[in-house]
Amino acid sequence: MAEIDLSSIASPADIRKMSIEELRQLASEMREALIRKLSVHGGHVGPNLGMVEAVLALHYVFDTPEDKIVFDVSHQTYPHKMITGRMQAFTDPAHYDDVTGYTNPKESEYDLYSLGHTSSAVALAAGLAKARDLKGGKENVVAVIGDGSLSGGVAFEGLDYGATLGSNFIVVVNDNQMSIAENHGGIYADLRLLRNTNGTAEPNLFRAMGYAYRYVHYGNDLRSLIDMFRSVKDSPVPVVVHINTMKGMGLAAAEMDKEEFHYSGPFNPQTGAPLNEQPESDEPTDYSELFARKMMAMMKENRQIATITAGTPGVLGFDAARRREAGKQFIDVGIAEQAAVDVASGLAKAGVRPVMGVVSSFLQRAYDQFSQDIALNRQPATFVVFYGSMFGMNDETHLGFFDIALLSNIPNLLFLAPTCREEFEAMLEWSVRQDKTGTIIRVPGGRMTSNSEIEILEDYSEPIYDIVRKGGDVALIGAGTMFGNMQKAADILEKEGIAVTLINPRNLSTLDGATLDLLKDYRLIITAEDGILDGGFGQKVASYMGDYPVKVINLGLPKEFLNRFSAKELLSECGMEPEQIAHAAR
Amino acid sequence: MAEIDLSSIASPADIRKMSIEELRQLASEMREALIRKLSVHGGHVGPNLGMVEAVLALHYVFDTPEDKIVFDVSHQTYPHKMITGRMQAFTDPAHYDDVTGYTNPKESEYDLYSLGHTSSAVALAAGLAKARDLKGGKENVVAVIGDGSLSGGVAFEGLDYGATLGSNFIVVVNDNQMSIAENHGGIYADLRLLRNTNGTAEPNLFRAMGYAYRYVHYGNDLRSLIDMFRSVKDSPVPVVVHINTMKGMGLAAAEMDKEEFHYSGPFNPQTGAPLNEQPESDEPTDYSELFARKMMAMMKENRQIATITAGTPGVLGFDAARRREAGKQFIDVGIAEQAAVDVASGLAKAGVRPVMGVVSSFLQRAYDQFSQDIALNRQPATFVVFYGSMFGMNDETHLGFFDIALLSNIPNLLFLAPTCREEFEAMLEWSVRQDKTGTIIRVPGGRMTSNSEIEILEDYSEPIYDIVRKGGDVALIGAGTMFGNMQKAADILEKEGIAVTLINPRNLSTLDGATLDLLKDYRLIITAEDGILDGGFGQKVASYMGDYPVKVINLGLPKEFLNRFSAKELLSECGMEPEQIAHAAR
Repeated sequence: MAEIDLSSIASPADIRKMSIEELRQLASEMREALIRKLSVHGGHVGPNLGMVEAVLALHYVFDTPEDKIVFDVSHQTYPHKMITGRMQAFTDPAHYDDVTGYTNPKESEYDLYSLGHTSSAVALAAGLAKARDLKGGKENVVAVIGDGSLSGGVAFEGLDYGATLGSNFIVVVNDNQMSIAENHGGIYADLRLLRNTNGTAEPNLFRAMGYAYRYVHYGNDLRSLIDMFRSVKDSPVPVVVHINTMKGMGLAAAEMDKEEFHYSGPFNPQTGAPLNEQPESDEPTDYSELFARKMMAMMKENRQIATITAGTPGVLGFDAARRREAGKQFIDVGIAEQAAVDVASGLAKAGVRPVMGVVSSFLQRAYDQFSQDIALNRQPATFVVFYGSMFGMNDETHLGFFDIALLSNIPNLLFLAPTCREEFEAMLEWSVRQDKTGTIIRVPGGRMTSNSEIEILEDYSEPIYDIVRKGGDVALIGAGTMFGNMQKAADILEKEGIAVTLINPRNLSTLDGATLDLLKDYRLIITAEDGILDGGFGQKVASYMGDYPVKVINLGLPKEFLNRFSAKELLSECGMEPEQIAHAAR
Repeated sequence: MAEIDLSSIASPADIRKMSIEELRQLASEMREALIRKLSVHGGHVGPNLGMVEAVLALHYVFDTPEDKIVFDVSHQTYPHKMITGRMQAFTDPAHYDDVTGYTNPKESEYDLYSLGHTSSAVALAAGLAKARDLKGGKENVVAVIGDGSLSGGVAFEGLDYGATLGSNFIVVVNDNQMSIAENHGGIYADLRLLRNTNGTAEPNLFRAMGYAYRYVHYGNDLRSLIDMFRSVKDSPVPVVVHINTMKGMGLAAAEMDKEEFHYSGPFNPQTGAPLNEQPESDEPTDYSELFARKMMAMMKENRQIATITAGTPGVLGFDAARRREAGKQFIDVGIAEQAAVDVASGLAKAGVRPVMGVVSSFLQRAYDQFSQDIALNRQPATFVVFYGSMFGMNDETHLGFFDIALLSNIPNLLFLAPTCREEFEAMLEWSVRQDKTGTIIRVPGGRMTSNSEIEILEDYSEPIYDIVRKGGDVALIGAGTMFGNMQKAADILEKEGIAVTLINPRNLSTLDGATLDLLKDYRLIITAEDGILDGGFGQKVASYMGDYPVKVINLGLPKEFLNRFSAKELLSECGMEPEQIAHAAR
């Protein structure tokens, strides 16, 4: 077979002219290009390598962009981007950063949504299909969702509604037998049964929800996929096409270790060995590792402590070995943040001490459960928030600076912002031994810092600010991550002979009125936080001080969906570099 | 059969001694007492009348409170309250208000949670069961969930996780063939199939999720229920017991009109006729009726406008007749707020103009969808928030004053707070004809007010405050519902010769800096809002003004889960009566 010039593929029209043989050749070359790029650039390895054929087959059969495809999470859309006008971003290293890692309507008319959270594609597509029916259109509407994403509640809600459309609605379930880590949930036994019986078994989750059902056992075989998609194209009723694919296909290391290669940094394309591996260290070098070691030690000492994740054990530092060792005390509910918070509530109610680790951007799915089932019911569960910072993830779909505004305004819910490793550990230990309150502990952003002089409290339930230095008529209040820069600003000012009061507020959910009252005759208070200003900590201070003569300047992030920003530049744009803070104080 | 003295039932122990005959007599007397109370007091009629036997059978068979029962929504727990020490609250009119309408641990050790939102019981109970397993306990854990609540995503997440427990976990699905209104979703065809085949059919949703499955066709027959509950008691594996009950049983009117009697005010116990019915009126007298008429008119004029609800059509003023008339343009996705918001996003993306009506306390389940699928993707869908006010519902589980803090801090999402009928209508009309932004419109609380002089804008997308009066050095900014009291306060002050600037901010998501800058040399700004202060509107103003000499006083509600409060008293406690505001200004 002659090589295909990848740069000649400008749109799906270019592949629709191809024979199956040519498509196979194309798939093979695309996979090679993907491995090349991923090995130097990093990215979602497994999801994309597993979906090369299915994406080609979809665009081969369906008349995109008139026919509409919504990809769930959209972390599997590198092949889709390659054949919809963005090939160069995958073949030319100088252009590797031209595209984002997710679908993005600003890049292409083939991308319907900027989408990075799981489980929403089915409901979004159901809306597109319903609109088509109201407008009298005829296009196909396709949702593509992975088995791992199926555990999210909104996926089920979308399937439930979609089944009632009574018209064309095609849900492709990409079953690669993995979530980010292994799957957890009752539905996965049914998916296995369906795979093992070539789709013939009952019970069948999808039929039970009202869908016609088709199964493709060789989900990486172009012929099988194309035949199946042709058979459901223009289907007059909702249908689920369940395809069995291999995550990481074509890269031996990724086929072997699917969890490691779900998302990976640069690696050796032959061996799969990571290029930038951290050397083993006796001391934990990041908060994930610190958290995991701490929880392992606490769980060993007390069998009634449990660690919970909603499908992201790696974020918590719980690799497969630790999960095995923790046994029944480690709970992965699958990608299901709402259930995770409620399971934590149930555990706490029954006397177990649950600690859930959760990514800032994903916890927002469980607001109702935080409000009703933790806070209102005063259940002493602990939630450790990772990447809650401008120094966390920087895709517009995964921002980590909305969580203070989201959770600190819930009554009865303690929001703690440790400033360093020692304070984080102390707060975590305290939260697990108390039974007064549900507690959020927001892991500081950026590199882990240590401060052996940090003042540790016996009890963090009441708001007690730490007045680290006292002096002058300017007060600097630095929350969480931002305490460090406030401290540096204080150092600068002190060198200039300006005495300042430096405060670590610790608690972002309730003001320490007694301490704030001490500041009411100051000339200036500056607050800084690693989160949006709107609805955050500083505005509460400004409101409290509104009736006093003291001026208040709140520093923090703008209320914007920033995309692929530089945290360093952002820090400076927000005036939160130490020298800028010092300047504002002068 | 001799009458049973209801007042002799102090705990479930008292019913466990009874024969089936005696239990039947008890059920009959309890139902009579319920109808008597409900007919003068109002409450959840249908859910409770339908569950008298099932609740008795559960407490008869299971060893509560050691065995644990979590009731979903808990609006069906009046019979449960009657036999767990609270009978007097259902038999003695002087004590009718002694209990809340939901389970409440402050009332009884038999009540595990203060719970009023749907769909969470399964995941909460799964946490209780997991805790039992970690602690080596032996008790049964039972979740009771209605068919209507099953459509909520967290119910599915909880079922999915619960199936993996591998131990005792009993889910009673109370299938009364109704949500608040009729059910919507693909799963309901399966439930019907199961009912029609005495539970024998495939596909079976519950088996597909990994549960053993039992079916009770006569779910109001004590013998059948008791036999079944006995057969699953101490089950070593997760099991679903699907019971077929009659909503409203025993009250003919409630059996006939299940939607009307889901929740009802006082009624004639013979005929079911409402006692406090509003007279028919040419003019709408509340915002639900206004909204429905408005939407019906707009949808008739433009077939590409759609109205969406997540299972609460009545709140939107869409009774069965209107739903029929609206046809395909009225969308009920079932109790599934996340999907509702995503369906709205899909509709908007495809050019339809969707308007979702939603209860303030329930919209919080869809925060992630508001953030990701509406705001980040800038989809011009409209969300009309009902009961977003201290004058809305006053159960601690249904509070409506957190929505400003929750939604106004999301980027790219316009939060409008109309102050009267005319402004509400203008904002709704504008939102449907524009395509710039997703829009929240918060219905004002309390009685509908009219203001024919209100200034209407051509475009509400930019923050432009309405300076209703200008004068003096005190500015009163009254948001939404609170504008009226601010206006009265201004009147009081003007009579005293104090000139004030009175402002209707209209937009609570972005400050109108130009207008606020005009106030920077004022002596005082007072803001008032019908929501919690923390994370709300006023604190943004205080922060903006922090660097200026002007004093700022923010009025609003405390960050607390208030329960069964008097809105009038609360208003006064918050200093938001007109005279109090005037006093603060002086």
